Amino acid sequence: MTKQLFHPTICWQNGAVKLIDQTELPLKTKYLYCRDVKTLWHAIKRLSVRGAPAIGVAAGFGVLLGIKDYKGKDNKKFLKDLRKLCDYIGSSRPTAVNLFNVLDRMERVAEQNSHLSVDQIKKLLKAEALAVYEEDRRVCRRMGDYGSRLIKNKQSIMTICNAGALATVDYGTALGVMYSAKTAGKKFHVYACETRPLLQGARLTAWELKRAKIDVTLICDNMAATVMKQGKVQAIFTGADRVAANGDSANKIGTYNLAVLAKYHKIPFYIVAPYSTFDLKIKSGKEIPIEERKPDEVAGFRTIRTAPKGIKVFNPAFDVTDHSLISGIVTEAGIIRPPFKTNIKKIFKCYGST
Amino acid sequence: MTKQLFHPTICWQNGAVKLIDQTELPLKTKYLYCRDVKTLWHAIKRLSVRGAPAIGVAAGFGVLLGIKDYKGKDNKKFLKDLRKLCDYIGSSRPTAVNLFNVLDRMERVAEQNSHLSVDQIKKLLKAEALAVYEEDRRVCRRMGDYGSRLIKNKQSIMTICNAGALATVDYGTALGVMYSAKTAGKKFHVYACETRPLLQGARLTAWELKRAKIDVTLICDNMAATVMKQGKVQAIFTGADRVAANGDSANKIGTYNLAVLAKYHKIPFYIVAPYSTFDLKIKSGKEIPIEERKPDEVAGFRTIRTAPKGIKVFNPAFDVTDHSLISGIVTEAGIIRPPFKTNIKKIFKCYGST
Repeated sequence: MTKQLFHPTICWQNGAVKLIDQTELPLKTKYLYCRDVKTLWHAIKRLSVRGAPAIGVAAGFGVLLGIKDYKGKDNKKFLKDLRKLCDYIGSSRPTAVNLFNVLDRMERVAEQNSHLSVDQIKKLLKAEALAVYEEDRRVCRRMGDYGSRLIKNKQSIMTICNAGALATVDYGTALGVMYSAKTAGKKFHVYACETRPLLQGARLTAWELKRAKIDVTLICDNMAATVMKQGKVQAIFTGADRVAANGDSANKIGTYNLAVLAKYHKIPFYIVAPYSTFDLKIKSGKEIPIEERKPDEVAGFRTIRTAPKGIKVFNPAFDVTDHSLISGIVTEAGIIRPPFKTNIKKIFKCYGST
Repeated sequence: MTKQLFHPTICWQNGAVKLIDQTELPLKTKYLYCRDVKTLWHAIKRLSVRGAPAIGVAAGFGVLLGIKDYKGKDNKKFLKDLRKLCDYIGSSRPTAVNLFNVLDRMERVAEQNSHLSVDQIKKLLKAEALAVYEEDRRVCRRMGDYGSRLIKNKQSIMTICNAGALATVDYGTALGVMYSAKTAGKKFHVYACETRPLLQGARLTAWELKRAKIDVTLICDNMAATVMKQGKVQAIFTGADRVAANGDSANKIGTYNLAVLAKYHKIPFYIVAPYSTFDLKIKSGKEIPIEERKPDEVAGFRTIRTAPKGIKVFNPAFDVTDHSLISGIVTEAGIIRPPFKTNIKKIFKCYGST
């Protein structure tokens, strides 16, 4: 299980980005080949590829798509065009900081090697994008190993959205913890919240866990409180899209909901997020931009309209969980415990930031 | 507005029960005519008619359907057959106590008049079923008048499921409060939680409120916490399916969820429920039977399958909100405040029980 659970969610293949079209799962397993950056931008925008770490990997590959046919020889112009390209890729979705962190890495590589030829810089950028890909695989397994210690035998845990193989290259953050726990021989059960409006829990997490032979039960998001009240949940694990310097964490809408319920029911609540999901430039969750998506996602499902025509809708794609509600943040360097502000600073000093 | 907001959700017409088929709303306004008790039983079971008070009214009319062609003259046999009929109607859904309270009323009328002829008893039963219908209309308006005092001008309130005209004969419990507030000239805004899995909030409440020209915004259930955190909600109103002697209240799944969130965000949480929704025979919510419905409701969406085949599902249709989370229960005799055990006893002593 620790080796490779799935074919990669996203990879670089013969000059194209190959990715599973997650909007079609679990009914169809269809691969998309993005051969230009615009196609990839739309794939990110409409969630064919989603999940903060996978979006980060996609951003790196997106840069490769944008420069692969670059013929110019002028370094300065190349750097300027690269910045424009990164701005364009960054405009696809605002909340997951992995996107911007990877784009920053790509720009930095180019800037630090601006004395080299355009061709040489292009080679270094390709190496960097592939490094982001490989790091994701390695880092997810390390988080899995740390996080799995938090799962005790015969426990039942809960998660929301999909922080699994499909949200990363091939292993997952919150679900990676579960895969590692299974590999370690632990027996446990998972409640997957369906995660309205786009049902990533029902469509992706339920599918992934079932495939990995992990005992999973699907519930609607509004059933979480009842399940907790019945004493059926001993821990909650979710991913994150951006973690602020004080530990406040943005994640899929409904996560904050679960965190409040967990506090009330005295259930530990863990975030699983690699360094690339931290944004130490911002002090608190108040500064995290929250994407608001189209009303249609809430007013209906796929081709079926449910709400009356013309109804007003509020559709934030993410929420922010206050650090006071978080028991621990599982990273590739270990589990960060409160007080988060101090301990996040400490761990980043010791292990370095991306 | 206080007169009649809609055509009745359910009524007795020419020896049949006429009801709006709520499974088709808001896309189609289709009426069902139930001419025999089995058809009505299925209409209740599959939620063509739903909402605790409306189910109560349906139960009374169901008795009328079951006895309308009764030809026997033997009183004792009639009473025995009536009990069987009531047991059958009562087997349609387990949680809403209005169903059982109305069936008890019907049986009591027959028992107290067992010295009369079968034909005379049948007439009294018809009068009783129509009295239940009329009481519902009167009682909803009285709850509306009491409850509307809790809504202040320019506030924003939240509700879940549909506790409106469609859940009663024609006015509503929680939404009745909003209709009365509007009639009183108050301006306010409503967040309607969509209420998975069957989306009564999106399909019915959004439709009703929009029709009544009340400013309404639809959200997914898992967005409620974010809306509260943003300070956008000043009060929550929901209906109930059964209120225990200590104030614990069963209502549509997700209500307990909202109540916990309301407590955390210091927002008052009100239940709006007539006497016929109280079950004083049970001490607490622990004794309320919770209906569990088919997995398909969660695993898909009408004709669209969303979750992987064979996935395990937990699908409780209701949850129980602990009385400690409730700020007040609006009834036709006024607003009951904590301590509920004492104050429910007091109000029932003063005003009598059904």
